[in-house]
This record gives sequence, structure tokens and C-alpha cells, in this order.
Amino acid sequence: MAKIRMGMVGGGEGAFIGTIHRMAAAIDGEIELVCGAFSSDPARSQRSGAALHLPAERVYTDFQTMMTAEAALPPELRMQFVAIVTPNHMHFPVAEAALRAGFHVLSDKPATLNLNEALQLKELVAETGLLYGLTHTYNGYPLVKEARERISRGDLGKVRKVVVEYPQGWLADRQEDTGNKQASWRLDPKQAGISSCMGDIGVHASNLAEYVSGLQISSLCSDLTAFVEGRELDDDGSVLLRFDGGARGVLHASQVCAGEENGLRIRVYGEHGGLEWAQQEPNTLWLKWPDRPTEMLRAGGGYLGALAAANTRTPMGHPEGYLEAFANLYMAFAGQIRASEADIPLDARSADCPGIDEAVRGMTFIELAVAASNSDVKWHPFPKH
Amino acid sequence: MAKIRMGMVGGGEGAFIGTIHRMAAAIDGEIELVCGAFSSDPARSQRSGAALHLPAERVYTDFQTMMTAEAALPPELRMQFVAIVTPNHMHFPVAEAALRAGFHVLSDKPATLNLNEALQLKELVAETGLLYGLTHTYNGYPLVKEARERISRGDLGKVRKVVVEYPQGWLADRQEDTGNKQASWRLDPKQAGISSCMGDIGVHASNLAEYVSGLQISSLCSDLTAFVEGRELDDDGSVLLRFDGGARGVLHASQVCAGEENGLRIRVYGEHGGLEWAQQEPNTLWLKWPDRPTEMLRAGGGYLGALAAANTRTPMGHPEGYLEAFANLYMAFAGQIRASEADIPLDARSADCPGIDEAVRGMTFIELAVAASNSDVKWHPFPKH
Amino acid sequence: MAKIRMGMVGGGEGAFIGTIHRMAAAIDGEIELVCGAFSSDPARSQRSGAALHLPAERVYTDFQTMMTAEAALPPELRMQFVAIVTPNHMHFPVAEAALRAGFHVLSDKPATLNLNEALQLKELVAETGLLYGLTHTYNGYPLVKEARERISRGDLGKVRKVVVEYPQGWLADRQEDTGNKQASWRLDPKQAGISSCMGDIGVHASNLAEYVSGLQISSLCSDLTAFVEGRELDDDGSVLLRFDGGARGVLHASQVCAGEENGLRIRVYGEHGGLEWAQQEPNTLWLKWPDRPTEMLRAGGGYLGALAAANTRTPMGHPEGYLEAFANLYMAFAGQIRASEADIPLDARSADCPGIDEAVRGMTFIELAVAASNSDVKWHPFPKH
Amino acid sequence: MAKIRMGMVGGGEGAFIGTIHRMAAAIDGEIELVCGAFSSDPARSQRSGAALHLPAERVYTDFQTMMTAEAALPPELRMQFVAIVTPNHMHFPVAEAALRAGFHVLSDKPATLNLNEALQLKELVAETGLLYGLTHTYNGYPLVKEARERISRGDLGKVRKVVVEYPQGWLADRQEDTGNKQASWRLDPKQAGISSCMGDIGVHASNLAEYVSGLQISSLCSDLTAFVEGRELDDDGSVLLRFDGGARGVLHASQVCAGEENGLRIRVYGEHGGLEWAQQEPNTLWLKWPDRPTEMLRAGGGYLGALAAANTRTPMGHPEGYLEAFANLYMAFAGQIRASEADIPLDARSADCPGIDEAVRGMTFIELAVAASNSDVKWHPFPKH
Repeated sequence: MAKIRMGMVGGGEGAFIGTIHRMAAAIDGEIELVCGAFSSDPARSQRSGAALHLPAERVYTDFQTMMTAEAALPPELRMQFVAIVTPNHMHFPVAEAALRAGFHVLSDKPATLNLNEALQLKELVAETGLLYGLTHTYNGYPLVKEARERISRGDLGKVRKVVVEYPQGWLADRQEDTGNKQASWRLDPKQAGISSCMGDIGVHASNLAEYVSGLQISSLCSDLTAFVEGRELDDDGSVLLRFDGGARGVLHASQVCAGEENGLRIRVYGEHGGLEWAQQEPNTLWLKWPDRPTEMLRAGGGYLGALAAANTRTPMGHPEGYLEAFANLYMAFAGQIRASEADIPLDARSADCPGIDEAVRGMTFIELAVAASNSDVKWHPFPKH
Repeated sequence: MAKIRMGMVGGGEGAFIGTIHRMAAAIDGEIELVCGAFSSDPARSQRSGAALHLPAERVYTDFQTMMTAEAALPPELRMQFVAIVTPNHMHFPVAEAALRAGFHVLSDKPATLNLNEALQLKELVAETGLLYGLTHTYNGYPLVKEARERISRGDLGKVRKVVVEYPQGWLADRQEDTGNKQASWRLDPKQAGISSCMGDIGVHASNLAEYVSGLQISSLCSDLTAFVEGRELDDDGSVLLRFDGGARGVLHASQVCAGEENGLRIRVYGEHGGLEWAQQEPNTLWLKWPDRPTEMLRAGGGYLGALAAANTRTPMGHPEGYLEAFANLYMAFAGQIRASEADIPLDARSADCPGIDEAVRGMTFIELAVAASNSDVKWHPFPKH
Repeated sequence: MAKIRMGMVGGGEGAFIGTIHRMAAAIDGEIELVCGAFSSDPARSQRSGAALHLPAERVYTDFQTMMTAEAALPPELRMQFVAIVTPNHMHFPVAEAALRAGFHVLSDKPATLNLNEALQLKELVAETGLLYGLTHTYNGYPLVKEARERISRGDLGKVRKVVVEYPQGWLADRQEDTGNKQASWRLDPKQAGISSCMGDIGVHASNLAEYVSGLQISSLCSDLTAFVEGRELDDDGSVLLRFDGGARGVLHASQVCAGEENGLRIRVYGEHGGLEWAQQEPNTLWLKWPDRPTEMLRAGGGYLGALAAANTRTPMGHPEGYLEAFANLYMAFAGQIRASEADIPLDARSADCPGIDEAVRGMTFIELAVAASNSDVKWHPFPKH
Repeated sequence: MAKIRMGMVGGGEGAFIGTIHRMAAAIDGEIELVCGAFSSDPARSQRSGAALHLPAERVYTDFQTMMTAEAALPPELRMQFVAIVTPNHMHFPVAEAALRAGFHVLSDKPATLNLNEALQLKELVAETGLLYGLTHTYNGYPLVKEARERISRGDLGKVRKVVVEYPQGWLADRQEDTGNKQASWRLDPKQAGISSCMGDIGVHASNLAEYVSGLQISSLCSDLTAFVEGRELDDDGSVLLRFDGGARGVLHASQVCAGEENGLRIRVYGEHGGLEWAQQEPNTLWLKWPDRPTEMLRAGGGYLGALAAANTRTPMGHPEGYLEAFANLYMAFAGQIRASEADIPLDARSADCPGIDEAVRGMTFIELAVAASNSDVKWHPFPKH
């Protein structure tokens, strides 16, 4: 059995998220990068490919060429899926081209530039019958999976309250004027879409809230703003949430909380207890009880569920991090590809990867959070597509 | 120079907050409990007084009797101020009686049963020229004072974002059915007023947000609820905040976050940095910076400001807690009494105690949070009285 | 029933530990400071007494005068016990005078200047039948008591390993040259005895190790040093420990761990689990298990034992600290006095205060640690007196 | 430029450390596993190789065959270095065979079964002129490198005290009777050597102490034991340390601290400040100062030195862990190979990998700690080879 063959679009020299994707794909030795169109600048794409030890003929000048050329290769050589790691505005065109050329797609988030594209993508996925995965990284952490499982099996009782927050500080000043590429495109509506803060990190928070709680947001009320002068897109926002079944919540996210790093954190409270998980200390999950000591669950603990265990590589006390969480999504997606090719049912680990439904809900969240913020009406129902 | 003489209304056998007040008043050896009306049940009041080593003749059957009898004593014997530690509905009547009888008042929060009473109280304080203090305990912590000072002197730059939260879990089930006295009155509109969660702890959070940030809330949008069936008053709520000058914020508080203790926590972010303080680890203040290491300030540190230092009793690493924070308010109020009697200016430490203005703003917050939650209108301006 | 009447020797203006003792004694309203000899400088003693609101006639110029004068007062007025808060070299003379004059003694630690005095003191206590307490403060924390109870009832199985550490940094440079009074006497053999680090804090650590584990040290091997030039006494030391029954341990303490505050911390491991407690976060006790989640116990938790509960004043999440731990020792000692006067059996809370046996073991530890450090022999048996 | 080609000895199905090595080698896409002798059981070796997607002809039945066969391949195909991930007793034979066959060696620790082998290995490395690396994983963490650099450049002043500890709990009961392979060989003198606890983790602690402090241990005093009945090798030990230049220290390590995970932690104190790092929260480094706030340095911080930065893959707040630390050693070793082949000087990152000198010091430490524990003499000088 050979490794799964991956192509990549985006992620050339100096890119942040492309390197992350490649490391995550490499860790477990199950996926091989075989080709790429790493930059719209052909020389840069070639240099990037060479640095990645790829043969020159598998490094393409643009993604359309890549799709055509790879599709023309013998099946046992050509890539099996495309990892999309471009800025947001290219997600949909690349995904569309890949699906139409017969390749599975694993895309960085948010899925598309806007909701309309996400809905088109959903149709295309259904039409082609191909696989689509979305890298909501934080779902990949084993203790996030444990949190979901504990709630799902009822340990906390009926969920009442969800508090999810995502403070960052990297845009507290005008990074976009300093040549910071990330900052430039994330604050540019043409490349990022209608939101910076909600589009980049708010959507992670809303996805995490739904993934962990097992509930869907039913309506929201929001207050977004751009604190730093001259920005067209929000760099901060707070959102009141209501969920199906009566739970309520708060989501706040910011790119201007000066001094914060990557502070994604979630707390969920049910009738009988609560839980808390924070991305910066991802190997710990807190369970809180009214009448007995708080429990500190740790990655690798023998008492964890099967899904957490399957997504852990090291024994207790040997910390795993962001790359391993990312790798868990890659492993799930690789498992989906193998199951699809072998025409066998998905195992639980492989099934557990965000897909096209999360893509659509994410884009819905972003557009609704922006619309609600601009409105004097308090509550805005969350459309189900 | 003698100790300051205190009388107490409420706080009989088994009461929570009365005992706290007495310990806080006692720590520094500057205040002496000389009399009390500890319960509306005369026998219980007498038993309570005896357990406190008070002479029987200074233990009263009701607060009116106490005011009259004490006022009739020679000035050097009679109490100088009344500590009010009853349920909310008695705060105003007792305060009114005390002020009219010529006694200063130090009251537990919230100041009154409703805003109307608070406004009356404000007039009465002005009229009598007597002192009025309000025990927003958390202001008493030295590192809360340091946080306020650092922001006030501009270390963080202009404030943009305030996140204040106050999760508790003690009312996650129907404690009011178990004989829990606290639970019973706090959920009873006749004794507690129109809010349980906002009235008991949300008001601490809004006070802390304003105290630390130095800003006033200008409008809010809120979503309160009672998660536990059968409750007339809210046991949970989330509030979007806007402040004078453009800062924004989130306040969330709950009595049903099962497994939480007393999780008051505040984070403030300005243009140049952020800070964080949590009540459960009160001797630590975090300063966060975009370009240099996060700093952990500790109570007792030689680098702290004068106000923090003046409110600290022990060297670094010898933790102080809730009672000492409370005691700081008592010491400030005692300082006000001494200054008033000596007709000298207030020192900074003595001046730093919440008073009638905070009383009015607190009651305004409670009423507005409830009204806003019941409204379909998104933003509700915060009235200035 | 009246308050217990306390006299104090030492603790004049500017003293650290005297103020701590007075606050601790005052918190619960059960003990009243009635007299004192606060300084060997009569004017300073009088100024100190006046600041404490004592009548001039109960402020004495020296401790001998105090003993005589108080003994001459009517029983219902005179002090019932003496709190000794002087430098070490005065502990024994004052305790001796107090006991001979018929007063109970509550002494700061270490008990005496040397072991010989401690043994004399033990005889005197036995002879007079009076009460003797020793303020090993850290025993007073409720979660230290809980730790002891959990081990005592076998939750961890047979104890194997004890790790106790006490890093401080306040003597990392020559504080003794700066006018720092504490530093001066603690590094002066005439006032402090033969050890600074072991005598001041190592002895707290050894006491805590024995109190929590329920085991006695049977032999030790030590390495003490003075890192800062010119010091006659140790400012740092590490000690290997063996306990009765086969457990082993490590104790390290330092006054020159620059940047440390008051880092007393203990970990005990048995066959089935471990526990950890740290003085700087005293309201948390960790229980660690091989096969289930680590438990975080919190002061005020309903699941704690009776002794922890009896030594807690506030609900969960309302932190108590160093003064309250100290106050717990005062309350226990006050309980011993009341039981002694009423000739009734001691309740568990009152019994739980270090006494003359701990005094002797502490002085033995200090002398042995110093002797062992100076020896080429590895193991030194711990004498039982 | 092609990837570096790695062969592996050991690490077949079910092995712990072999999988870790492979993941670490894979993360950065610079090293390719091309062959292996994964087990002494040929069928198991083949199954392991197949699962790793290796061609059958590069999977060998034993390490001697592998050395011969690989040496016979064309230079551009054959492996460039061997990763040794067997139990300890095989480290030397495999390393010897590899070096004699002309291959560089990257070995798991401890380097050999005993000191004598390590000294032979040192000669062999010198003789062959080949590269030798030793995976003291914890050196690979960026903040450990930062700690070393801060001390090396004098931030803390002259080092006085080193406290290093390594509590684990996985051998608190007789795991060796349960079929736990790790437990079986680590407690078997024939496979593990003369020590279990010191040989497996004590040696990590001593290495870390020397790496971070920049000092060498000059003598020690130790107390090892086997707490669990029937064990021939130590499962716990405490060691007093003295360093060249006058610093002192404590090292304690255990495999029977029930409930502990992998608690390696180091604190170093100098004249002007201290630092602390703990492996379970590896992305944080604490700097402690007597007169200003404690600083929390975080991986990815722009204020960190070049070596820390070069060993970090993700932005601040995106945690890296154990595998990435391991990968840093692999990247350094790969850099050494590239520099060696290109005959260019080593860059700082590549130079920073433990080698044959650390191998010899590690084996010296293990043998000395055991000998000292068995001796009545207190201090044992640390031989320099």
C-alpha cells in the first residue's frame, strides 16, 4: 500500500499556512507531497518546489495547469487530493477546478470568499461525489474530541451555556502597513471577504462551539468593529448566541487584544457540570462538578475515549500541539480517501473531519455576524441551508 | 486615639455576609463592633450578640431601636457607623434610618432594592452630609487597584476592549428548595429586587469594569434568562457593552455555570497592551505586551504603586485573599470617618472606597440590563443620574 | 463568655511578624490583645502600644515587668497567654518567664535559639502543666490539613516519597547591609542561632513534611552553604531525607533563589497516588492518580474533611490566605485555653496546633542539618528526644 | 538537492520510541526513511517495513545485513545515517557496526549499556571521523535553548543553584508483570544496564542541568532505591550536585511518583535572577527577578534569540510539543550531514545537537549515581574522560 499523494495550491516561499499544512501532512508518514502550484509567480513556484525536494516537472505555474497535467498522469502516480492553502478568494476557484478534474479537496478555512460560493461548492461536491474537507484545525485536538464526546454522552446533562472566545493581538497596530503579507490580505475585502476577525478566527470559534456542544446556533446578535483606523474590515467582535434547544452563549473574538497570542478557549456548562478547554494548553481538559473535585484530564490518559486515543501519538506528559492537531485532520481525510478507494465504511476517526456542511455553516456565520452588527434589530435567525 | 465604633444590622447566626464583614472589620485592629441588631427575631439577635461577646444592652431587637438607643448614648461610646448586611430589600430602610439618626453607613451591595431607592438615598446622603460606602469587595484587592492605576496613567494606551465575566455555579439546581437561605432570598423578587444574577454578581462585574478601565458604560444590549425552571429572576446573563470614548466590551455572569466557584475575571486591552486579573488568584496581575514578555505582577512587589502597597499587609508570596480585600474597604471607610472627624483632607487610600455614585450606577445597571433583555431593541443608552 | 486575652512580647513599630500575629489573632473576634512589651526600647514600646489602642498602663517596658504586673491583676483582667514574636534568641527567655509566671505561651518559630533550650522548655512545659503552641503557620492552611487527612486515612497507600521545597530570594544580595532589620538578625548567629536558611524556612519545610506525611524523619544527609560572601550562616541548603517506615525524600530550601517569593511546596507520593500543595496557591490541593484524572480540590469544597471545613471561613472561590492560616493556629490555641479552663476534652480543631514536641523536633532538625553538612559521613540519624 | 536518507534499527510494530523518531524525522520534509531492520524477528521486521511503505528489499532481517547491503548500494541511494531506537544493550553494537560500515549514527539515549562502551564509542567516532548524535530530546525545545542562551550571556549573573527534577509514575506498580514491553526491558539489567530510573530519565535531567546552566557537575552524593518489590534496578533516586565554579544543585527523578506524567522541570538561579522551565508546558519560560515582575517568555516571541527562533515552526500561541523538540535534533543532525558532505562550516542550529561527549558524560553520571548510592562516602567526584 502506497502513501496518499497530495498536491498543493498556494503555500510558496514565506507563506505561513502552507508550511503548516505540509508539516501536518508529513508527520504520520501516510501522505506524500507529489506536486504543487505554490505561487502565481512561476519562478517563485519553482523555487518553492525545489526547496521541497519536488521534481521540477511536478511543480506547476498555475493551478489550472496542475489539474490538467496531473489528471493526465497514470492513476498510480497522479495526486489524489489537493490541499488549498491560498488566501480566501482563491479557495473556491481552486476547489472547483480540482473537483471538476476529479480530485478530492482539503481546503483551508474559511471555505470560500462568501456564502454564495459555499453553496455552489456544496452542490459541486454532491454532483462529483468527491471528498471535501475543511481544516478547522482546533477540532483536531484529542481533548476537543473528548469534550465533544463527554457532552454527547450526557456527562454534563443538557447544555445550557457556551462561552467561546478567541482573542489575538497581532493586528493591534497597522501591521498591514509594514509589509506583513498575512495582515495585508486578511484586511483586504477582495482577498479576505467581508470580514477579517470573524472570517479568520470568529468562524473557528463558532465551529468549535457547535462541534463541542453538539448544538447548532439558531440566532445571534453581534457587535463588530474596526478599532484600528482605516480598516475596511472588522478587527474585533462580540456575539450573543442562542442555540437550538434553548442553550445560550457568548462568542468574542479579536485581532487587537494587544499581547494575546492565539487564545481560543471554550467553556460549556450543562445541568450537571461544566468543561473548559484552551488552545494554548491543549493537552488539558477540565471537567467541573458542583459536588466533587474538578478533574484535569490529560492527553494520553488511559481514561479517555477511543476517538481521543486514536488522535494521540505520544504518552501522557509528552505534549502534542498545533501541528499534531492539524495532522489529525489530514489523517482523517487520508482515511476517507482510503475508505473511498477501497469502498469500505469509514471508521470513526476518519469520519471526524469537518466537511462541506461545516463550510456552509461557517460562511453563514460570517455573513450573519456582519449583517447583524450593521442592524438595529437585536436577534437574527441563523439560516439552515 | 480609640478604635472606630461600628454597629451592625443583619448578620445573625448562620448568615454568610455578616460574618465576612465582621472579620474584615476586625483584621486591622482599627474598628470595634460595639452593637448590633442581628436579626428580626429578638432571641436570635441576642444569641448572635452574645456569641460575638457583646454586652446584652448593646444588642437590639430591631434597627429602629438601635438607632434611637445609640443616638442617646454619649458621643464617645455610641457607634460611629452602621454596617448593613441584610438582604437587599432592607438596605434602604436601614440606611435611611441610620443617616437620619446621624450615623455614617457602610452597606453591602447592591445598594438598594431598586433604582428609585438609590436615587432617594443619594439625596439623603447629600442632605445629611454623612458618609456612605458600598462594599464592592473586589475593588479592595491591591492588584485591582494597580490595574486601575496602570490604565489610568496610560500604560496600555487608549482602552479599546473590556471583557469581564463572573461565572458561579451554586444555583445550578434548585437550591432554593433545600433550605439554603441565601438561595431563597436571592431568588425572591421581594427581597432581592428585579434580578438575581445581575443584582448579585453582574453588578460587581459592571462596577469592576468601570473601576479598572476608568470608563463609564454608555449603552448596552443584554440577554438574561432563568435556566432553572420555576425561577422568577434571572440566573444567567450576557451583556454587550459600549463605553464612553468608544471602547467596547462583553460582560457575562451566571449562577448556573455548574462547577464554577466565584470566577470573577477582567481583561482590558488598550492600544499598546492588555491586562488580566482573576479573583480566584487575586495576588497576580498579568500585563501583556505585543513585543515583549508578558509580565506577572505580584501583590507585595516593590514595583507596585502606592495605592496597591497601602492595601497590602504581607510580603510577596504570602497570599492575601477575600477577607483582606474586604478589610481594605473597611480601612478606607474608617479613614474617611477619621478624616471627617478631624476635618482633614482624605488620603488616597481612604478616598478609594465605592460610594453613593457607584450605588446609583449599580442600580441603573441592574435595571437597564433587565429592561434591555426584555426588549427587541438592540442598544439601550445608560442613563446618567 | 469573654474573649481570650493575649499579651505580646516583641512586634513593635515596623516589625513584620508581630503585625501578622496581631491580625491573625483579631480576625475571628475571639482573642483580644490586652497588653504588650513591644520593644526593648521603652519609648518605642509605648508608641507601639498606643498605635494599637492599648491603655498606657498595659504597655510594658520589658517582658519581666509584664509578667509580674499581669500576674498581679485580677484573673478576669490579666492576660491568659503570651504571644512571643521576638527574634529567636529571646524566644526561650520569654517563654520561660511566661510559663513560670503562670501564662500559656504561643511562640513564633523556631522554638528556641538551640536544641538545648528546646529540651529545657519541654521540661518546663511538663512541669507547669501550661499550654505551649508553636506557629508553624503552614499547618494552618485547610488544604494542608486535608492533605494530612487523606494520607492518614490511606488514600495514597503507603507513603514512598516526599519532596518538600522552600525557595525564597529575598537574601540573594547583601540585604543585611541595607538596614533591613529582618536580614540583620536572621543572619546574626547571636540572634538567629546556628542557621539562617534552615532555621528560618528549612524548619518549616521539615515540619510540613512530617505533618502532612504523618511520618518522622529517621536520618538525613545535607549540603548547606552561604552563597553570598561574608555570611556566617547558611543561606541555602539541600537535604536528603529518610523516614521511619522506608519512605525517602528531598528537602531543599534557599534564601538566595533570586526572584522567588515564598515558594513552600510539598509533594507526597504513595503506592496508589500522589498529592501536591503549594503555599502561593494555598486554596488548591492536587490529587494525582495513575489511572484516573488528576483531581483539583479547593478550599471550601463540600467534599473536604471536617478539619479542613472547620478551618475555612469563606465559600469556595473566595480565597483565604496566609493570615487566615495563621488565624487557624490562634483559634486552635484559643480552643485549647477554653478547654483547659473549662476542663473539657479538646475538640479536633483545637488539638491541631504544633506544640512542644514539634518545637523539639524542629530544633533537632536545624542542628542536625548543620552538623551533617559539615560532616563527611553521609547519613546522620535523627535523634528522638 | 535530495532529502537526507535515514535507516533505522529497532522501532518495529508496537515500539514506542521508534515511532517517535520517525515522526520527528518526517515533520520538516528534509529526511526520508529509506530502510530499516525493525526487529530481530524477520517477519515482524517485514510487516513493520511494509506498514511504513518501504519496499521489501530495503527491509532487513538484522542490522549487520543492513549495514552490508546498504554499503553496497550506490552512494546516491544508500542511507546516509542510522537511527538507533533499540533497547539500551543494542545501542553500542549497532552504532559500532554502522560507524565501521561508514554510516553516521543518531542514537537514542542512554548512549550505551555502560560507560566502558561509551568510551570505546568515543574512540570509534574519532577514528572514523563520522558524525554521532544523541537524542536528548529535551535539549530540542526552543525555550530550553533560550534558557541556555540567557544564562550563557549572563542575564542571571553567576549561577548558584540548579534544581532539576523528573518525576514519572508509570512504574508505580509492577508493570513489568503485565506484558508492558517498555517496563520489562527497562527493568532488566541485561537490556537496560545498571540503572532504570537514572539510566532512563535521571540522565536526561543531568544532561539538561549541564546544557542549560553551561556548567559541569563536579561531584555528587546520591540515594537511589527500588520502591517496588522485586526490582533489581532503581526506580527512584535523589542526588545532591556540585558544579564546577561553586554552584550547587539537587536532582531528583522517579518512576514511581504515582500520578505524575513526564514532569521534567528545571530551575536555575544566579546572582541576579532565576529561570524555570517545565517540559509539560514547554512553550513557556519564566524569568524571575528580585526587583521587577516575573517575565513569561513564550515560544515564537519576537524577543527570543536566534537559536530559539530557528527551532520554532509556528507563531506564538500555536503550541509545539515533544515531537517538534525531537525534530529539532533531527534537523540539527541533518544539517551536520549536509555541512559535512558539502564540507562547509556548521551553522549554529546544526551544531546544537548532543554528541559523543554528552554520551560519555551521561554514562559517567549513571554509573557514578549508582556507585555513590551504594557508598557510605558522601561526595563522589565526577570523572572527566
